[in-house]
Amino acid sequence: MEGTGDLLNKKRKLENSDEIVDKCPPVLKNFKDFNINKVIAENPRCKTATIHGQIAGEDAVVLLEKTAFDASHLGNYLSELTTLNNTLKNDIYGTYDAFPPLIENAIRATVIHPATEKHIKKYTDQPCYVVHETPELYTNITLPLIISKQFSIQWVYNILGKKKEADRIVFEDPDPEQGFVLLPDMKWDCKDTRSLYLVAIVHKHEVKSLRDLTADSLPLLNNILHKGLDAIKERFGVPSSQVHVYLHYQPSYYHLHVHFAHVQCEAPGMGADRAHMLIDVIDNIQIASNFYQRKTLTFTVREEDDLYKKYKDSGYFDKS
Amino acid sequence: MEGTGDLLNKKRKLENSDEIVDKCPPVLKNFKDFNINKVIAENPRCKTATIHGQIAGEDAVVLLEKTAFDASHLGNYLSELTTLNNTLKNDIYGTYDAFPPLIENAIRATVIHPATEKHIKKYTDQPCYVVHETPELYTNITLPLIISKQFSIQWVYNILGKKKEADRIVFEDPDPEQGFVLLPDMKWDCKDTRSLYLVAIVHKHEVKSLRDLTADSLPLLNNILHKGLDAIKERFGVPSSQVHVYLHYQPSYYHLHVHFAHVQCEAPGMGADRAHMLIDVIDNIQIASNFYQRKTLTFTVREEDDLYKKYKDSGYFDKS
Repeated sequence: MEGTGDLLNKKRKLENSDEIVDKCPPVLKNFKDFNINKVIAENPRCKTATIHGQIAGEDAVVLLEKTAFDASHLGNYLSELTTLNNTLKNDIYGTYDAFPPLIENAIRATVIHPATEKHIKKYTDQPCYVVHETPELYTNITLPLIISKQFSIQWVYNILGKKKEADRIVFEDPDPEQGFVLLPDMKWDCKDTRSLYLVAIVHKHEVKSLRDLTADSLPLLNNILHKGLDAIKERFGVPSSQVHVYLHYQPSYYHLHVHFAHVQCEAPGMGADRAHMLIDVIDNIQIASNFYQRKTLTFTVREEDDLYKKYKDSGYFDKS
Repeated sequence: MEGTGDLLNKKRKLENSDEIVDKCPPVLKNFKDFNINKVIAENPRCKTATIHGQIAGEDAVVLLEKTAFDASHLGNYLSELTTLNNTLKNDIYGTYDAFPPLIENAIRATVIHPATEKHIKKYTDQPCYVVHETPELYTNITLPLIISKQFSIQWVYNILGKKKEADRIVFEDPDPEQGFVLLPDMKWDCKDTRSLYLVAIVHKHEVKSLRDLTADSLPLLNNILHKGLDAIKERFGVPSSQVHVYLHYQPSYYHLHVHFAHVQCEAPGMGADRAHMLIDVIDNIQIASNFYQRKTLTFTVREEDDLYKKYKDSGYFDKS
C-alpha cells in the first residue's frame, strides 16, 4: 500500500503537469459546486451525517462530523464572545441556543471525490439483521464460510512471533497451551485510562471462537482473565472492578482473542448482540462442558456482510 | 408538580416586582459572568461537556451539547457559504475544517443557576464498577436491598390495571400466568421505526428479575417472545429479524419486564453488562432449569447507586 507521503509526492509532481484537473481533483475552497443527492447515513447521537452528491458531474461522498469539545478551549465557549438566545426559562433552569466565536465553529468534513459505487455503498447506512445461530446453523452455514474464506491472520502470527508490534506488548505468558500476548488495541492511544482498551491473543492456534471452547479451555480462559487483569492493574493502575473482559461472537478474526475495556469507555462492540463476558463464558462451561456447542448464539449482521448473504441465500430470513 | 406554563406565569408576575433578581436569576445574554471551575463530565462520542462554575459568586452547572445535523438544513452546510480549510489531501480523499454559515453554528446550552451540591453531583461523571454477583452475593447483599427498599411499582400496576396509559397499549395477552401488556417505552416517540423501543410487562406478580426464572417460566417467556414480535410486526411493520428482545439485570424496577428495540437503535441499555437476550435466557433455562439460580451474573454499578454502597460496605471491592 502506498503511504500518504508517496501519494503526496506523486500529487506534487502532477501539480507541475497539465493533467492535474483530471487525475486528482483540486482542494476545495467551499461547497459551491456540490450538488446534494441524498443523505446516505446519519447518527444524531454522534452528530454525524454522510451525504452522496456530485461535484462537477462526478460522484462524491461528504462525511460531516461535529467536533468534540476541547477542554482547553472551554474558556472561549464560556465567555462574553458566546451569544445566547434563550429558548426556555423555568425557575433555575434555562436553555439557550449558544453561538460561540467563529474560531470554535469548525466541523470536520471529509470529501471523497471522485467516489465509486463501492465508496457510496461503504458509507451508506446498512440495514442490520439478527441471526439466532443454532449449532446446526453453525455447522451448515457459518463454519463452511469461515473455512472457505480462509481469512488471513498472518498479522496475528506476526504479533505472536514478535515480528511486529513487539514493543507494544504489555504482558506475555509464553506457554504454548495456556499463554497469550496482551497489547493495546489500535483504537486506544494508551493515554486516557478511561478509554483503556487492550486485547489478549492466545498463543494456541486452532481455537477459532467461542464455539470451540469446552472444559478443556478452562485453564487457558482463567489464565487470561486473571493474568490479564493483574497486568492491567500493574501497568495502568486500573483495578479489575473497572475493566470489562469479553469475547466477541462473531469475532472479526477467527483466532481466539479476548477484549479488555474500561467500564467507562463506550466501546461499540460491548453490545449484548456481540460481547460475551469472559467470566460468564467460564461459568457457563462449568455448568455444561459442551455449553457453546449446544447453545444458540445471537448476533447481528449487516447487509453487506458475507455471513448475511449466506444466511439470506439459505432462506433463513424468509420466516421473520 | 408545576408545569412550565405555571412557572413562566409566576416568573412573569415576579418580573413586575422588585424581587426578580434575588428570586429567579435573569436570562443570560452571554457567558461574560461565568467563571469556570471544572469540567465535571464529557462525552467526546456524543459531543457533550458539562462544566461546574460560578455566576455572580453562585454555583452554576452548564451543559453544552453540539447539535445533530438537521437533514433539511444540509443545503446551508453544503453551499458556497461554508468555508473549507484543507487539513489533508491524499488522492481522492480530502479532509477539511469546515466553517458553516453563522446560523448553523448554534450549540445547545443548558444553564442551572443557582445550582446546589446535589445538582453538581447529579451531573458529574460517576465512576462505575463491575460486580460479579454469585448466587451467595445475590442472597446476602442484593436481595435484602431489593426487599428493604420496597421500590414502589404502583405505576406498573396502574398500567396492568388499565388505570394509566391504556391508550398506549399495543398488544395484550390478559392471561394472569402467561399474559403481558406491550407498550411503547417513554423514550420512543412511535414515529421513526429505526428507534423502535417497546416494553412488555408481565401480568404475573412476584417475579422480580432474571434471578427468579426457572423452567416453570418457559411458557411465559416463549409467549412474550413470540406474541411480542408478532404484534410489533403487525403494528409497526418491523420483522423479528430487526428486533432485539432482552431483559435487564439489574433491572430498573423489580417486576418482570422485557425490552424490544430495533437493531439499528443504539439503546444505551444494550451493553453486555446489562442486557440478556430473551432467546438466550430461554435457551439457558432449557440447558439447566436452575441456570439463573446457579449463575454468577455480571453488572455495572455507579458510585451513587445504593447497590454500589452495599457492595462496598461488604468489602467486595477491597480485593480488586
